[in-house]
Amino acid sequence: MTKQVIFVRKDLKMKKGKMTAQGSHSSLGVFLQMMNNGKSLREEMPEIVNGSYSLKLDVTVGSDLDNWLRGVFRKITLAVNSEEELMDIYYHRREDLRLKEQDGRSPASRWGMNRPFSMFF
Amino acid sequence: MTKQVIFVRKDLKMKKGKMTAQGSHSSLGVFLQMMNNGKSLREEMPEIVNGSYSLKLDVTVGSDLDNWLRGVFRKITLAVNSEEELMDIYYHRREDLRLKEQDGRSPASRWGMNRPFSMFF
Repeated sequence: MTKQVIFVRKDLKMKKGKMTAQGSHSSLGVFLQMMNNGKSLREEMPEIVNGSYSLKLDVTVGSDLDNWLRGVFRKITLAVNSEEELMDIYYHRREDLRLKEQDGRSPASRWGMNRPFSMFF
Repeated sequence: MTKQVIFVRKDLKMKKGKMTAQGSHSSLGVFLQMMNNGKSLREEMPEIVNGSYSLKLDVTVGSDLDNWLRGVFRKITLAVNSEEELMDIYYHRREDLRLKEQDGRSPASRWGMNRPFSMFF
């Protein structure tokens, strides 16, 4: 079953509120990127027409993404122990993931050294 | 400055991982609803054309939403003490909020009795 996994660095010892806000940041961030050609709005802006722009996500009926959005919308939080572990997952493990984008990689949100990131399994 | 506020029930004594996943659920949930006429995909489906559907969000340049999306994308977590407090904020305080939708209420995500919810201030 497709789920969004939020990876959090345990070594940063974030408090609950901080972790929740940061985890949400990554959960929503990956979604916004999927609506903007895999780029953040700071990296690339959609076309502005008559003073507004559109973020859009096309979903194929029956796809993993569709099942997730219309299903239980499951999210889980996993802890990693260090920045190195986080980087390893981000750079080397994404190829194993089930929900692929067209370039063969799973969507994953922008992340910083001390930010959680999220991706879909 | 516009921010997304995630309200979490303290009395449920959720652990960090659970709170992070549930908070993300509400953070992303409100966004998905904004892309679907304020409804969840279970309540109402967009039109399906050639086996797919689109979720779309129109953003006015310079609006609170635009500033938030392109700015610091700030999120904060606030604790409430009980289901009653959560319901009070959800039903009675939304009119005070800065980021209004066309119906005059601030977007807020679907919520359950034991779910956090999020909205924009």
